[in-house]
Amino acid sequence: MGIPRQDRIPARVRSGEKLLPEQARVHNRELLLRMLYREGPHSRADLARRTGLTRVSVSDVVSDLLTDDLVREMGMRAGSRPGKPAMMLGFNEHAYQTVALDLSHSTLYRGAVLDLGGSVVTRRQVEIAGSTGAEAVARVVGLVRELTDEVTAPLLGIGVGTPGIVDLGGVILGAPNLGWQDVNLRSVLTERFACPVVVANDANAAALAERSYGESAPDSLLVRVGVGVGAGLLLGGTPVLGSRFAAGEIGHVVVDSDSDRSCVCGKFGCLETWLSTRRIQEDLSGARTEAEHARVLAVAGEALGRVLAPIVAALNVSEIVLSGPQRVLEGPLAAATTRTIRQRALTEVHGDIVLRLSGLGDDIVLRGATAMVMSQQLGIV
Amino acid sequence: MGIPRQDRIPARVRSGEKLLPEQARVHNRELLLRMLYREGPHSRADLARRTGLTRVSVSDVVSDLLTDDLVREMGMRAGSRPGKPAMMLGFNEHAYQTVALDLSHSTLYRGAVLDLGGSVVTRRQVEIAGSTGAEAVARVVGLVRELTDEVTAPLLGIGVGTPGIVDLGGVILGAPNLGWQDVNLRSVLTERFACPVVVANDANAAALAERSYGESAPDSLLVRVGVGVGAGLLLGGTPVLGSRFAAGEIGHVVVDSDSDRSCVCGKFGCLETWLSTRRIQEDLSGARTEAEHARVLAVAGEALGRVLAPIVAALNVSEIVLSGPQRVLEGPLAAATTRTIRQRALTEVHGDIVLRLSGLGDDIVLRGATAMVMSQQLGIV
Repeated sequence: MGIPRQDRIPARVRSGEKLLPEQARVHNRELLLRMLYREGPHSRADLARRTGLTRVSVSDVVSDLLTDDLVREMGMRAGSRPGKPAMMLGFNEHAYQTVALDLSHSTLYRGAVLDLGGSVVTRRQVEIAGSTGAEAVARVVGLVRELTDEVTAPLLGIGVGTPGIVDLGGVILGAPNLGWQDVNLRSVLTERFACPVVVANDANAAALAERSYGESAPDSLLVRVGVGVGAGLLLGGTPVLGSRFAAGEIGHVVVDSDSDRSCVCGKFGCLETWLSTRRIQEDLSGARTEAEHARVLAVAGEALGRVLAPIVAALNVSEIVLSGPQRVLEGPLAAATTRTIRQRALTEVHGDIVLRLSGLGDDIVLRGATAMVMSQQLGIV
Repeated sequence: MGIPRQDRIPARVRSGEKLLPEQARVHNRELLLRMLYREGPHSRADLARRTGLTRVSVSDVVSDLLTDDLVREMGMRAGSRPGKPAMMLGFNEHAYQTVALDLSHSTLYRGAVLDLGGSVVTRRQVEIAGSTGAEAVARVVGLVRELTDEVTAPLLGIGVGTPGIVDLGGVILGAPNLGWQDVNLRSVLTERFACPVVVANDANAAALAERSYGESAPDSLLVRVGVGVGAGLLLGGTPVLGSRFAAGEIGHVVVDSDSDRSCVCGKFGCLETWLSTRRIQEDLSGARTEAEHARVLAVAGEALGRVLAPIVAALNVSEIVLSGPQRVLEGPLAAATTRTIRQRALTEVHGDIVLRLSGLGDDIVLRGATAMVMSQQLGIV
């Protein structure tokens, strides 16, 4: 997923080596851009004061940013400060657009053109209609084509959130629901559309969206419920990807080894057998009363809580965010998850934990895909 | 625990701000020291080449390090390189000593004087004899006094590995086994001994020791079995502390909510009720045959595996290291843990996982405490 914030610090600095002048310039550019994006308009003098850079350095960088139209002069500062009024500089959310895809749904590939503020400009979608493998890739390419035709500003890049395991190079190592194994989607899209492409796991994209556009705590676990169940983990604001890029793949953790609920993975009693949207719908279709309905959701929520309890204890995260169909997740399901975590993991030392539904709704993966492109291309996260 | 490697990068650089000259000097000093410590002797020219620093900067820093006796001239380079022979510089492990304590045992506080190579110079220990609270603090102070009297080189600092939750300021927020709550052990020891003091959780200290002196993977989970059960987690080589410094506190995760095994925490069926050394000894004392003995250990190992499975899936760590009494951990216990994790969590996407016993033995926490002091005082991790 994109490039985590810490990784935008030039590698030589992180590894304890020396920062060269051209790296310093990129670094300073990203620093000022991030400040204007995150905190709103500043004057050149404000920027110098806040960053410790010289006014000359700030003016140089700002001049480049004005040329690129990423920053605009917003007029003189209103108000009563002494001295001559200062020109305010603001981030231009319309400088570029991104094309974003969300491949995590069971019947549709969803796509959109978004501006740099994460607002949707245009939407398109395509029926999956059972397509897998190369046919699925072709439909994804077609959807990107439709969207790039709708772009009305320079294209910053293409971001894709997909189920499955994705390495740092944008290769989908495995996505059973799409019939993909070792599919280099980034390379396919880069060649077709000649622009930067970022491909990441959908739950990781969603976690990044929560951080960029939502209200995530720096240590946060986002659980995404859809065609499968996955988690995106941020520690200190940085995504955790895992030693084989499979961090967050909690859907096939066994909740109850005595269960007869069979899973697509071949095991029995995996979390997904209670919590994927398909299995919940099946279970709900057998519920005839409101009490039975609530019971099905509570059982699914308890299954999630049993898997999350050790994770919460091990990481001491302060927040869990649920993302997925709201009518399913809120109410008895979320309540049962919270109760189960409290009963099975929390002691006073862990403090209380907040479990909440994401406020970003159905566009969370699309917005996360945009955030990934902005992170990679502009250093803004 | 100490200061993780990434945090040794000056905060202003990490936060994307500008590096000031005096910070750059500290940064460069730590950089050269780390290289000499980790990789053995180098010439000044080697150091300049490797770091990208100018020869003048390298010579300045090396001159300081020679004055401090942290680096010594080791003689001319042997061998056949062209040009005039270069003076080799080596890290001096005897420049300072540290005093290290391990408070994680059930009957003894253990302590030692160590050199900067992590070798034990002198050992002392004191009986706990049921002491808690202020009396326990007094015994710890007494033990440090005995050890500081034995120090034969300048004292770099005091490092303490303790059970319980410890914040970044060295305050033990809670350690039930020691009867401590909000005990500022760092401040007590700093005032008495007038030297730098680092206090951290014992499992975190052990994880740091594995990284510094053992063979840890960068993403690694160390499980420490002693008077309690705790874990120390490294991701990308950096310790995970948690939002309330309670990361790794997995001992009170419920393994089986139907169990009648009562825990000191008031719940039933916590991991510690199978896995603390005391409970294992109790269970083993009831085993009359070798098969029963193995069975007790396998049940404890399975309990650990059930707690670790979701954690392994969520983090996709490549390695789990067990630290504690070897005769208990190796064999049926470790085998059952591995088997349970495989059955309950692993899919092909997670790859295989290595579970091994730490090779650092009983001194792991003492060595970790030394590593913490070196990290904080010298920037070496």
